[in-house]
Amino acid sequence: MRLGLFDSGVGGLTVLKSIKEHKLFDEIIYYGDTARVPYGTKDKNTIIRYALEAVEFLKNFEVDMIVAACNSVSAYAIEEIREHINLPVLGVIEPGVKALLKRDAKPKDHILILGTTATIQSQKYERLLHANGFLNITALATPLFVPLVEEGIFEGEILDSTMRHYFKDIKDPDFIILGCTHFPLLKDSLQDYFPNSILIHSGEAIVEHLQSNFDITKSSNSPTLKLFASSDPDGLKRVAKLWLS
Amino acid sequence: MRLGLFDSGVGGLTVLKSIKEHKLFDEIIYYGDTARVPYGTKDKNTIIRYALEAVEFLKNFEVDMIVAACNSVSAYAIEEIREHINLPVLGVIEPGVKALLKRDAKPKDHILILGTTATIQSQKYERLLHANGFLNITALATPLFVPLVEEGIFEGEILDSTMRHYFKDIKDPDFIILGCTHFPLLKDSLQDYFPNSILIHSGEAIVEHLQSNFDITKSSNSPTLKLFASSDPDGLKRVAKLWLS
Repeated sequence: MRLGLFDSGVGGLTVLKSIKEHKLFDEIIYYGDTARVPYGTKDKNTIIRYALEAVEFLKNFEVDMIVAACNSVSAYAIEEIREHINLPVLGVIEPGVKALLKRDAKPKDHILILGTTATIQSQKYERLLHANGFLNITALATPLFVPLVEEGIFEGEILDSTMRHYFKDIKDPDFIILGCTHFPLLKDSLQDYFPNSILIHSGEAIVEHLQSNFDITKSSNSPTLKLFASSDPDGLKRVAKLWLS
Repeated sequence: MRLGLFDSGVGGLTVLKSIKEHKLFDEIIYYGDTARVPYGTKDKNTIIRYALEAVEFLKNFEVDMIVAACNSVSAYAIEEIREHINLPVLGVIEPGVKALLKRDAKPKDHILILGTTATIQSQKYERLLHANGFLNITALATPLFVPLVEEGIFEGEILDSTMRHYFKDIKDPDFIILGCTHFPLLKDSLQDYFPNSILIHSGEAIVEHLQSNFDITKSSNSPTLKLFASSDPDGLKRVAKLWLS
């Protein structure tokens, strides 16, 4: 089976990494829209337009399934993509909430959702969590985490002061949803800041979701990867080499 | 006279502000490519493509002159724009260097150039400064300043730690070229960090250049402004209201 995976840029490689490590699919086509990254600071109509263009690109490769490895796309464009193409289409938000349930989160647990401005404004995580009975939810836009990750800053003084800035009013969440595919790269620093919280990672969530809901043959080898980018494809390949190793 | 001014996003509004305050032009058409911001982390060919699309948009308004109020565009695409359109086309880099000369910078003065990754990699400032006899130049990419400005963070702990990160090896420059149109919004913090340095601002530089080289009637009123954006035009107008006041 062939999977088409896309993101605004390099962030979705964290999802690719999880799928690859679990040896799901024979081939994965990754498309990063690096010419227009980030999506998370842009408006809904723009995000939908870009998502449909990414899907058009992936159609060229006759993929069997599409994963939008981007929370901002998952927040705004999943229905539009499903109307546009006759294939299974997965976002990362529903799997993230399911992963939380699987970890025995209780209704009164404090859930902190971190995401881009677009993802948080969509309130999609909150609606899904409310629908599943959660009562104690904090949704926080942390857009500066995206350029920090893109700059390769995963720890240190700038990240610490950025965390203090965003988290000054946040007390000890039980669970933290990393609601942006860039954020798993900050997980050690986030875990240091909130040592008692359980972090939910979109990549792991989507692997659990794929394994539970789809009949995907686990192959003995890692899937073949094909990486594409709308700007500077060599840059994407360099980051992939670093992150996927 | 009607001026067409464009930038990757909101940063060029700092240039618009200077031109408006000096009451140059009767009308200014501003285009911010907010759907694809930032340009400064993207590659040369992508920046050229986006710049030509912005110019195509401005042609609709029968402008008399074009200013690329973006250092990344000025670094890579000015010649391409000049080949594309039969109008005076100005970037911000040459005027910035001329403004430095006008302030009696000496060959041995230490010049610090701050810019996006794209602008610094182009080495365009350095080449121009070398051609003008300067010998002591430091060029530094400070891409995190862009999202900080877009987040409205102009001072405080995050900016201070980001400045310490970038400036740890920099000693007391005589002049600092703010080689990105976002950076004038950080000028108070930069001046606090380097109290003895003279800051060169693209907006002021372009006003000096326009007044010295073109016969532009100074009107008694501020120019009429028309603001356009490729994503979330209301967002651009909100920022403009805040910054231009």
